[in-house]
Amino acid sequence: MTLQAKPTITVFERSPDEGKGLARDMRVRWALEEVGQPYEVRPVSFSAMKEAAHRTLHPFGQIPTYEDGDLTLFETGAIVLHIATRHTGLLPNDAAARARATAWMFAALSTVEPPIIELTNARILESDKPWSAERLPLVEERVRVRLADLSRRLGNANWLDGGFSAGDLMTADVLRRLTRSGLLGEFANLEAFVARAEARPAFKRAFEAQRSLFHRGGIV
Amino acid sequence: MTLQAKPTITVFERSPDEGKGLARDMRVRWALEEVGQPYEVRPVSFSAMKEAAHRTLHPFGQIPTYEDGDLTLFETGAIVLHIATRHTGLLPNDAAARARATAWMFAALSTVEPPIIELTNARILESDKPWSAERLPLVEERVRVRLADLSRRLGNANWLDGGFSAGDLMTADVLRRLTRSGLLGEFANLEAFVARAEARPAFKRAFEAQRSLFHRGGIV
Repeated sequence: MTLQAKPTITVFERSPDEGKGLARDMRVRWALEEVGQPYEVRPVSFSAMKEAAHRTLHPFGQIPTYEDGDLTLFETGAIVLHIATRHTGLLPNDAAARARATAWMFAALSTVEPPIIELTNARILESDKPWSAERLPLVEERVRVRLADLSRRLGNANWLDGGFSAGDLMTADVLRRLTRSGLLGEFANLEAFVARAEARPAFKRAFEAQRSLFHRGGIV
Repeated sequence: MTLQAKPTITVFERSPDEGKGLARDMRVRWALEEVGQPYEVRPVSFSAMKEAAHRTLHPFGQIPTYEDGDLTLFETGAIVLHIATRHTGLLPNDAAARARATAWMFAALSTVEPPIIELTNARILESDKPWSAERLPLVEERVRVRLADLSRRLGNANWLDGGFSAGDLMTADVLRRLTRSGLLGEFANLEAFVARAEARPAFKRAFEAQRSLFHRGGIV
């Protein structure tokens, strides 16, 4: 494949969270910062995301996408894995350790995040429904089960499996969605894990880059 | 890493779906059959899955796990990707096409499957709740939005991006969870996609191997 000097990612034109770093391009920005790869951003409006031109890049009409020469990718997992595979810094060299780091990426996205999204749906999309208050504890419990498993595995370690990897990046970014829910506070080691991740210089650069885009535009 | 002649996967000792091929080891069996890799299975009881010994292999106390010499993996996405990377037959040779096939694996597991799991939760875990009937259409609509996007992208093609890949395997297996919901029938090309996947000899061998394990045990 032909690669360009700087890949381009698409991001929200307006910030749904007012620049608090929860939009999913955060994961990609963070990975690019960890490996020291400069990148360009192309903001996309909510309506343009659902149009045919953007759907050519992203079948589900979402952000981020990743374009690098003739390669176009969607799905943050695939984009971060691609970045981690092409550069050093986000995956161990040992083949078995590398496969295990990839397992944590999949775990973050397909085991830990889905109940968190369900909780967000329950809190926001279903907040006006008659069942909202009664159902919320049930959905919170689904999240709590995953957090308890994750907390037990992490124990006193800094990261999930040896040194910091793309698996930790993805897991920490998924857990960040819980910071205002109170649930993360029930698991001190997970809260410390997220704080440790957010203290990384690459995270801070990515966060500031996402935030400043919205602020520069005078949007938030 | 040291590899053995035959990897070992863990599977349910008893079938929650009576051998209809919905347990998640199906994806791993299918991938192993596609690449012609023989394997061993080790059944695990529901209670043993939650115990410390199994949690060493799988932090979330689930099946399947994958053991090959000194490598232990969990998460079907990571296991199938590992198999696809080590053998020919499930990923294209071209690097860009390979990254795109990986994107479909992540899409299946983190974009398409989560609303399907939410629908299963609504149908089964919340079937006795007072909100069950009123809430169901809302959850079905979340699944329908994903299916419409997927259907639009697939169009008249046989597979999602060129030849059959691990991305198609994962997507088809995720969609199989909907076969009795009626939702898949609203999208003729997706129904045909699943039928095409299930017609593959490797799928049939994997399905039969999973089914016969339960029947041999006289469990179903």
